[in-house]
Amino acid sequence: MSTPLTFYYEYSSPFAYIASELIEALAAKHGRQIEWKPFLLGAVFKSEGTQPLMSYPKKGVYSRHDVERTARYHDIPFTWPPSFPFLSVAAARATLWAAQQDSAAGPRLTHALFRATFKEGRDIAHSDMVAEIAGEAGFDADAVAAALKDPAVKELLKSETDAALDRGVFGAPMIFADEEPFWGVEKLQMLDRWLERGGW
Amino acid sequence: MSTPLTFYYEYSSPFAYIASELIEALAAKHGRQIEWKPFLLGAVFKSEGTQPLMSYPKKGVYSRHDVERTARYHDIPFTWPPSFPFLSVAAARATLWAAQQDSAAGPRLTHALFRATFKEGRDIAHSDMVAEIAGEAGFDADAVAAALKDPAVKELLKSETDAALDRGVFGAPMIFADEEPFWGVEKLQMLDRWLERGGW
Repeated sequence: MSTPLTFYYEYSSPFAYIASELIEALAAKHGRQIEWKPFLLGAVFKSEGTQPLMSYPKKGVYSRHDVERTARYHDIPFTWPPSFPFLSVAAARATLWAAQQDSAAGPRLTHALFRATFKEGRDIAHSDMVAEIAGEAGFDADAVAAALKDPAVKELLKSETDAALDRGVFGAPMIFADEEPFWGVEKLQMLDRWLERGGW
Repeated sequence: MSTPLTFYYEYSSPFAYIASELIEALAAKHGRQIEWKPFLLGAVFKSEGTQPLMSYPKKGVYSRHDVERTARYHDIPFTWPPSFPFLSVAAARATLWAAQQDSAAGPRLTHALFRATFKEGRDIAHSDMVAEIAGEAGFDADAVAAALKDPAVKELLKSETDAALDRGVFGAPMIFADEEPFWGVEKLQMLDRWLERGGW
């Protein structure tokens, strides 16, 4: 029995959104399950001494263009959210809560939130919007709203983020196949070969 | 007549070395020439507020591993130079000087210097070593040594670096196909598709 791929993502990352649309087909091709792991990239900026991608003068300009080009390349609908980057705390908390309900609920809410943001341009920085989108995706919106304020859920996001950093996560998307890390949408092709060949 | 690909590289970048081993086959496949453009990445760190890749705590660890993994993936011999990152001023100056001799001399010296460093582990931070390697590659070692001190060559590297930054270069390797920028070894596959389809 092969281990699941671990997919680390930050809701404010358009590249993580693109990867979220591609990872399931890739995993299925190799008979792998996926562990969906939302975390807060902000914690990385502090520990690495980096900044949000788009705030670098030239790299930011390139990256905005590259996001749009990469989405078109993969035929994935894309739009910029009304504010960007945005605080993803509510979205990440809601997803961790959902994942506790049943194993399919985490990815279901992940897709709903990512698409609401990067396909429909809705502002998921706000708790109300997160609860609304969760409601549309079949969750109990009131339960989601309550979960966002639940100290246990808050603590879970903190510990998940710490665990990601401890594992060496420094960006999003980042995918581990067994213990092998792959960072960025561009690495999905290498991950595909890695799984095919069992490494090299 | 299609325009050449412009290949921007920094001698201290192992990813630029890997790209230098792949770019010619890619360009030939699409009937493109290559403009070889050495520049100093140090100038970017100042203007972007970034650091050398390997100096980030987690990203550095990942990147070291990824360099070795990527080289193996492409069957490119790789070793770490004795000191890394290193000052690439002499190597870049020598290459700009060589390119003025004839159009094949720039890439010839580029391969000689990159391979001396990342295949043989020789320390090209030093002018003497750069002249020695140029000599082995068929250049007049004394003329190279003189060129490294030539104010016109120094000025040329400065203006080439400024021009790269003005064009939006923020990392190495970076390749422009017409005005479309591609950053990193991972993007060579997308560049291949771009040239095939004429963009999208």
